[in-house]
Amino acid sequence: MSVQDMLEGHAAGVNAFPAETEALGNQPLQPTIENGWKVFELTAQEVTWETEPGVFVDAMGFNGTVPGPELRVNPGDKVRIIVRNEMTQPTTMHLHGVTVPNGMDGVPYITQDPIMPGGFFTYEFEVVDPPGFYVYHSHFNSTEQVGKGMYGAIYIEPKGGFSDVYGEKIEVESTMFLGDGPTGYVLNGKGFPATQPIVAELGDDVLIHLANDGALIHPMHLHGYHFEVVAEDGFVLEQPYMADTLMVAPGQRFDILVKADYPGVWAYHCHILPHVEGPAGMFGMVTALVVQ
Amino acid sequence: MSVQDMLEGHAAGVNAFPAETEALGNQPLQPTIENGWKVFELTAQEVTWETEPGVFVDAMGFNGTVPGPELRVNPGDKVRIIVRNEMTQPTTMHLHGVTVPNGMDGVPYITQDPIMPGGFFTYEFEVVDPPGFYVYHSHFNSTEQVGKGMYGAIYIEPKGGFSDVYGEKIEVESTMFLGDGPTGYVLNGKGFPATQPIVAELGDDVLIHLANDGALIHPMHLHGYHFEVVAEDGFVLEQPYMADTLMVAPGQRFDILVKADYPGVWAYHCHILPHVEGPAGMFGMVTALVVQ
Amino acid sequence: MSVQDMLEGHAAGVNAFPAETEALGNQPLQPTIENGWKVFELTAQEVTWETEPGVFVDAMGFNGTVPGPELRVNPGDKVRIIVRNEMTQPTTMHLHGVTVPNGMDGVPYITQDPIMPGGFFTYEFEVVDPPGFYVYHSHFNSTEQVGKGMYGAIYIEPKGGFSDVYGEKIEVESTMFLGDGPTGYVLNGKGFPATQPIVAELGDDVLIHLANDGALIHPMHLHGYHFEVVAEDGFVLEQPYMADTLMVAPGQRFDILVKADYPGVWAYHCHILPHVEGPAGMFGMVTALVVQ
Repeated sequence: MSVQDMLEGHAAGVNAFPAETEALGNQPLQPTIENGWKVFELTAQEVTWETEPGVFVDAMGFNGTVPGPELRVNPGDKVRIIVRNEMTQPTTMHLHGVTVPNGMDGVPYITQDPIMPGGFFTYEFEVVDPPGFYVYHSHFNSTEQVGKGMYGAIYIEPKGGFSDVYGEKIEVESTMFLGDGPTGYVLNGKGFPATQPIVAELGDDVLIHLANDGALIHPMHLHGYHFEVVAEDGFVLEQPYMADTLMVAPGQRFDILVKADYPGVWAYHCHILPHVEGPAGMFGMVTALVVQ
Repeated sequence: MSVQDMLEGHAAGVNAFPAETEALGNQPLQPTIENGWKVFELTAQEVTWETEPGVFVDAMGFNGTVPGPELRVNPGDKVRIIVRNEMTQPTTMHLHGVTVPNGMDGVPYITQDPIMPGGFFTYEFEVVDPPGFYVYHSHFNSTEQVGKGMYGAIYIEPKGGFSDVYGEKIEVESTMFLGDGPTGYVLNGKGFPATQPIVAELGDDVLIHLANDGALIHPMHLHGYHFEVVAEDGFVLEQPYMADTLMVAPGQRFDILVKADYPGVWAYHCHILPHVEGPAGMFGMVTALVVQ
Repeated sequence: MSVQDMLEGHAAGVNAFPAETEALGNQPLQPTIENGWKVFELTAQEVTWETEPGVFVDAMGFNGTVPGPELRVNPGDKVRIIVRNEMTQPTTMHLHGVTVPNGMDGVPYITQDPIMPGGFFTYEFEVVDPPGFYVYHSHFNSTEQVGKGMYGAIYIEPKGGFSDVYGEKIEVESTMFLGDGPTGYVLNGKGFPATQPIVAELGDDVLIHLANDGALIHPMHLHGYHFEVVAEDGFVLEQPYMADTLMVAPGQRFDILVKADYPGVWAYHCHILPHVEGPAGMFGMVTALVVQ
């Protein structure tokens, strides 16, 4: 590749960031309340998903997005999640890390029959876990279904939100799902420059929930900062530690805290470089922490 | 693949679990006692190994199994391990993590000459390490030899067993070797549905020893539970931590404790989904914790 | 491969170790002092690099070596690093983990224009971080540029060196960069048998700085010893822990301490066996701790 093409490629990505695409995942889903139960409705769908401007992939998602919508519940809640299947193949849903009765665990033929196309299944449980960050995802033909985007966030939080968990006022809360495979290298279903930055004011306490539902381990590096790793798999660490690069394996979740003390645009990306930058510049698993 | 084929495939695996195959690894090997030494005899062999019903692979194993037999020793023991080579290529044995004199370290031409086909080598050492979970494995042409199954467990334990290490009565103790490569994706040398479940009674304290002698990192996820990570590489952690998914890299060992408080059949599997589930259902690195 | 070829291959590598090759990386670079600033000069170059005897690869390096030279600074220092580009493509430099003003962060078109062939850029910052081990590396077309060797060590250390950090006299200090990709599997830019051993006297306290600037995660296993993991990403761990195998992901750094209490030649290698040993013996990411 010529020097000129390299320069133009590197510049074009940065200039386009954050690029607009059709639809974003991680949208809040409000439950309805029925006889004291919080009821969420999720629909599994085959969708065409725009990962970066003009790049459309065959995806699968809950409620049409990758990741699916965000569910927020409180300790002690009675929760009902109705999962409808509008796809052309069966599915199930697993509440990864959440303590549920065995019959609600979502493993086909072990704990339930698959949800057939056109059918539905109702997952019910009481929240007995402490506050933390959890994930729901498909557990049928999962290499394809999770690989194509059937995952989303479920937060167990106190009434006061995660500020109450970490003992300081969280001004910015952000969630980042790592993905690879059929959707390409993506953060929250988007590849750079269509990834969304995390935007904070100087001095803010920023909480980032990290989850990986891809098939590779991704070490996520934040420029210019050391962050504090404060929770793993939904559990607050008794011994938090500092890092600037954190491995997140498929199935793992971490909470990290960043004190936004340095102004600027700080790249935040997977440090496996073939996932983020080639001769034509950055792509894939790159975003930024923007401190204003 | 048709929906019907998907359903039948997913059901068939679960219905067959745990499927019978020829021979299991991790069998206890009793030492003989000679002048105060505990003497174990291991024989390296090329074997045909059934990883799941009807699937036979060219393997290599100690005493004919993958993994090899389990060796149990106590702190202060004088240990002698005689390794005979009945294979068609040379070999050596490395006591991974165990403190031994340099001449017993098993690295060809650095600490010993290779053990020729038909020959043997005697590894001798006194146990100076604290109680913990260790591994022995080939250290000659090791991509092939370890990849094909030449690894096994060596436990350094107090007279009272691991209950004395962790300060609670361990009702169920289980060991899980992760493997990939020539044997396929396997747990203790078997792929689902031929993997063996961990069976516990409600309320049991379950100790799982995890080791990886494959060539990939595997994040192991237990459904329905949070477990406590209590030891790494044979050392009890001063700061144990909770998780539901634990990365185990080649060469690493972990001990995890599960309090079997929830009845049911709980999947336990690698969360790199291409290692465990395709359109025709589960395979490879999947087993279950069965709490009765 | 015949048994004889296997034996000869295994022996040849060990007999040649440590083999000589043209040039070594990690050489100390003395700064000049200008008006109270420590000034380092780095030049990015395309080089032919000998990874093992007779094996030459197309590489890229700072000041002609892989890794580049070692920079040592003290807390509070004013540091200026002049990076000249003598390559045929643009570049930038990122100070990975070091707290610097945003304009010194080295991300093309986000914090600076690329350094054109024939041009230079001056990175300036005051050292505000606590003592620790950091890395500088290219951040333009980085899969190629870092993959081919554009990385090096920057140590922030007290006047008394790392002995002051860890509260014990460090007799041996060693740095190990893990690499893969275009340079092959390398430690400090060299593959076995051209890797350099770590040499200690019996009883020495040995500090090893580990960094990974490859594209794969490498679990590094030290034979015969348990080491103490004392720092991660430049930060001293409040809760150090013992291990014999440590995963190091691209972008991560660790400090480990070894008390050299056991004499002998102890292999130290990546435990992903396809990175270290085949039918013809050891290669790639293998070296040794030699305790005399």
